[in-house]
Amino acid sequence: MIYTITLNPTIDRLLYLEEVLTKEKNNRLESVAYDLGGKGHHGSYAMSKLEVENQALGFCGTTNKRQLEKILEQKNINHDLVDVYGKPTRESYVIVEKGVSGSILITERGYEVSSYDKSLLVDKIEEKVKPEDTVLIAGSMPPGFEIKDLEQLITLLNKIGCFIACDLSGEALKAAVKAGVNFIKPNRFEILELANHGQSLLDTVKELTKTIDYVIVSQGGSGSLCGHGNEFYQISPPTIVVKNDTGAGDCFVGSFLASLTQKKSFVDSLTFATACSASKVQHIDSTSFSVKDAQNLQKKVIVEKV
Amino acid sequence: MIYTITLNPTIDRLLYLEEVLTKEKNNRLESVAYDLGGKGHHGSYAMSKLEVENQALGFCGTTNKRQLEKILEQKNINHDLVDVYGKPTRESYVIVEKGVSGSILITERGYEVSSYDKSLLVDKIEEKVKPEDTVLIAGSMPPGFEIKDLEQLITLLNKIGCFIACDLSGEALKAAVKAGVNFIKPNRFEILELANHGQSLLDTVKELTKTIDYVIVSQGGSGSLCGHGNEFYQISPPTIVVKNDTGAGDCFVGSFLASLTQKKSFVDSLTFATACSASKVQHIDSTSFSVKDAQNLQKKVIVEKV
Repeated sequence: MIYTITLNPTIDRLLYLEEVLTKEKNNRLESVAYDLGGKGHHGSYAMSKLEVENQALGFCGTTNKRQLEKILEQKNINHDLVDVYGKPTRESYVIVEKGVSGSILITERGYEVSSYDKSLLVDKIEEKVKPEDTVLIAGSMPPGFEIKDLEQLITLLNKIGCFIACDLSGEALKAAVKAGVNFIKPNRFEILELANHGQSLLDTVKELTKTIDYVIVSQGGSGSLCGHGNEFYQISPPTIVVKNDTGAGDCFVGSFLASLTQKKSFVDSLTFATACSASKVQHIDSTSFSVKDAQNLQKKVIVEKV
Repeated sequence: MIYTITLNPTIDRLLYLEEVLTKEKNNRLESVAYDLGGKGHHGSYAMSKLEVENQALGFCGTTNKRQLEKILEQKNINHDLVDVYGKPTRESYVIVEKGVSGSILITERGYEVSSYDKSLLVDKIEEKVKPEDTVLIAGSMPPGFEIKDLEQLITLLNKIGCFIACDLSGEALKAAVKAGVNFIKPNRFEILELANHGQSLLDTVKELTKTIDYVIVSQGGSGSLCGHGNEFYQISPPTIVVKNDTGAGDCFVGSFLASLTQKKSFVDSLTFATACSASKVQHIDSTSFSVKDAQNLQKKVIVEKV
């Protein structure tokens, strides 16, 4: 069983522009749509789509609870969230420009969680997670959730003995690496926080794999640099037209962990996750991808030993 | 009495970023705030602040009516809007980057107005507007409000014999010029729609002032090129630090029309409106400006006869 933990969930408000975003001009919207946000939820979506059993845990503000739950139900995501009373789940703004690759992501901070809210989440995790399970902690931490809370959470998971995957950044990523986890996926900006002064990207990855089972540095459209034990690969996706890259990394993480639990090899898991992510960026929303397309794209993924 | 007509009102959602907007990065928000949106409403705000009697007319969706009315009341804006049942007033997103001049504006299209909604607005205008009044039609037109509706509205106002000011763009601006109005304020993009092929900006303004009493081309931080009768001026604002330029043009229009009704001269009205607008851009929201600051800044506004 895989559990995803989204500490700071969000509802994505997708803003589709008529043209390219320009300053000093009124940028008119063609349409507005809503989608699931939050890295953990996105991971759960990919796992569910790949028919790998999972459950989304984390917090949920009660003010707009129905809106978040409706999206989770539409996306077929099994979830068991801790209610945070009288607070609204934050929104993220995904700006998609007409005819431009990628997207622009703007995120709200989110509501403050209390000690009581945090204790309810810990209770749920203690009750559910077994040693054979995988737990993904992904995304930002809400106000009130401190680094020490994250450390306590990882310590608890290490005590249980499950596989711990993290998609975190900044201080949270540093703390996770220190506390001991099995998987990290920093992007090219986030990895800099972990590198020693003057250290090359590959050397940083090599150093990290001494203590972390799987280290994957995502490099946007250029693919990823991946390390596991003594194996290091540069993975390059096939050339595709990018419509919206928001959620691409989350799709990668969800598909990769789903593949690992299905006992696929490291390289197979990497190429399939890269292909799922390549399918995702061809869709205009934050989550959708096609498993069939991914299976075809996987054959075109380039694997270079480094 | 001045009436402002906002056909497609909006609630501004101000998104204050922690840093500069960057692609492929999570752009985190420092805070989110709400402000009055819609060019006509912004104009009314400036007039009210300058203690010139005015009333805001136009449409108002009932779904989030309380939210719009609360902002109008907070801003001290006398209003009498036509309810559009079961529709929400649209939102505009004003992105303000940390340490960067100006702002980025993204606007939703707005709800569709029906023939019935339009007839209620016309009834209100027929009942209220007198020959000695000024009417400002400002901003975009909502879906369902066609060019022919705008032409009919201007024809009605011409029949009443009031002073007609327009802050419109594209086809609406062209139609307004053709139907006959007393004031236009296109920006440097919008004026291009009215220029003959190869015509210089000054020649375009000279041509337009043959039929329009006041022609003002706003040029952002560079000021404005202004024509009235046989007088043509390049107006340059003092050098200032721009925090948020959204609403600057609307503040100019509101202050200029307020000054005209106070029987100030053309040049005095121009310099004061430029100063009000220069005060506005030093505030982080969409509307605020200081009358005292404007009075000081007015002395530094440069007027060049052209």
